[in-house]
Amino acid sequence: MKFCSKCGAPVELRQPPNDNRDRHVCVTCDTVHYQNPKLVVGTIPEWEDGRILLCRRAIEPKLGLWTLPAGFMENGETATEAAIRETVEEATASVALLDLYSMYNLPYISQVYLLFRARLLDLDFAPGTESLEVELFDEQDIPWDELAFRPVVMTLRHYFADRKADNFQFRMGDLDAPAS
Amino acid sequence: MKFCSKCGAPVELRQPPNDNRDRHVCVTCDTVHYQNPKLVVGTIPEWEDGRILLCRRAIEPKLGLWTLPAGFMENGETATEAAIRETVEEATASVALLDLYSMYNLPYISQVYLLFRARLLDLDFAPGTESLEVELFDEQDIPWDELAFRPVVMTLRHYFADRKADNFQFRMGDLDAPAS
Repeated sequence: MKFCSKCGAPVELRQPPNDNRDRHVCVTCDTVHYQNPKLVVGTIPEWEDGRILLCRRAIEPKLGLWTLPAGFMENGETATEAAIRETVEEATASVALLDLYSMYNLPYISQVYLLFRARLLDLDFAPGTESLEVELFDEQDIPWDELAFRPVVMTLRHYFADRKADNFQFRMGDLDAPAS
Repeated sequence: MKFCSKCGAPVELRQPPNDNRDRHVCVTCDTVHYQNPKLVVGTIPEWEDGRILLCRRAIEPKLGLWTLPAGFMENGETATEAAIRETVEEATASVALLDLYSMYNLPYISQVYLLFRARLLDLDFAPGTESLEVELFDEQDIPWDELAFRPVVMTLRHYFADRKADNFQFRMGDLDAPAS
């Protein structure tokens, strides 16, 4: 951030009064521009035979890898609305949401993932514009080495274990930056 | 938003390619400026005798009303770090976090509340700069008519009921704009 989005003047990094960290503050109109983490919201769509719907990404990052339908929550919507919308956009799939299942924090990129358990309502799914393929997978066929994002890997591992134990528990975790 | 925070040129509202909603886009450098919901994260600090710690707000909005320690999550931190930090900042109180207890969506102001159950570790609390008073309340003494925010009201109502039933359940809800 170099310029004030309100008046167009330059911003500088400084600590506003009664604050305890540096912010981008406009040198002309004094507007403080806060920057906050983003929510990535999605679903774990399960068909009635136990298979899980995954999408193969048609866009960067992680083009070509598989993931659960998820994306950035938008202003003006709820987390459940966002989860359903992302599932429609990426897989044209209809789901009924169940409980919130997992929350993963990725502080090094200021993201928080929220993934909901969901019942896939029919088989009329197809790749949305951001997906190359959309497919149902049995647990043993999940492409573990071709999954795009670690919160998805961890969520699916817990999900299958919890399902086997017939005891879904809310799962939470924090992830550091991956080793480069 | 009127100007591009990257180059200082004006922005206009338009739909970028492969998008399905209007965004602020720079007329000069084409940067798309996304705006996303903010997380408000906090705790329900319980002392060993069952009393709950509330803070009376020293700042707007809702100056003079009571609330749980909570505030905007910052870039670079996890939700649990944010919840602990806010509890220190508003009440100089030390807590050990337990489970995530509630999530409330306020889409009309693009906020998502996340409140954690927490064990208050000692009685060395005091008002932080954003609080006028900090006090422990028994359930029957909670100032219900002087609580600042509806997610706090709803969280506390569920909390006391769940505690009585000895069965804490994750609570989720969506709130529309209040009647004016």
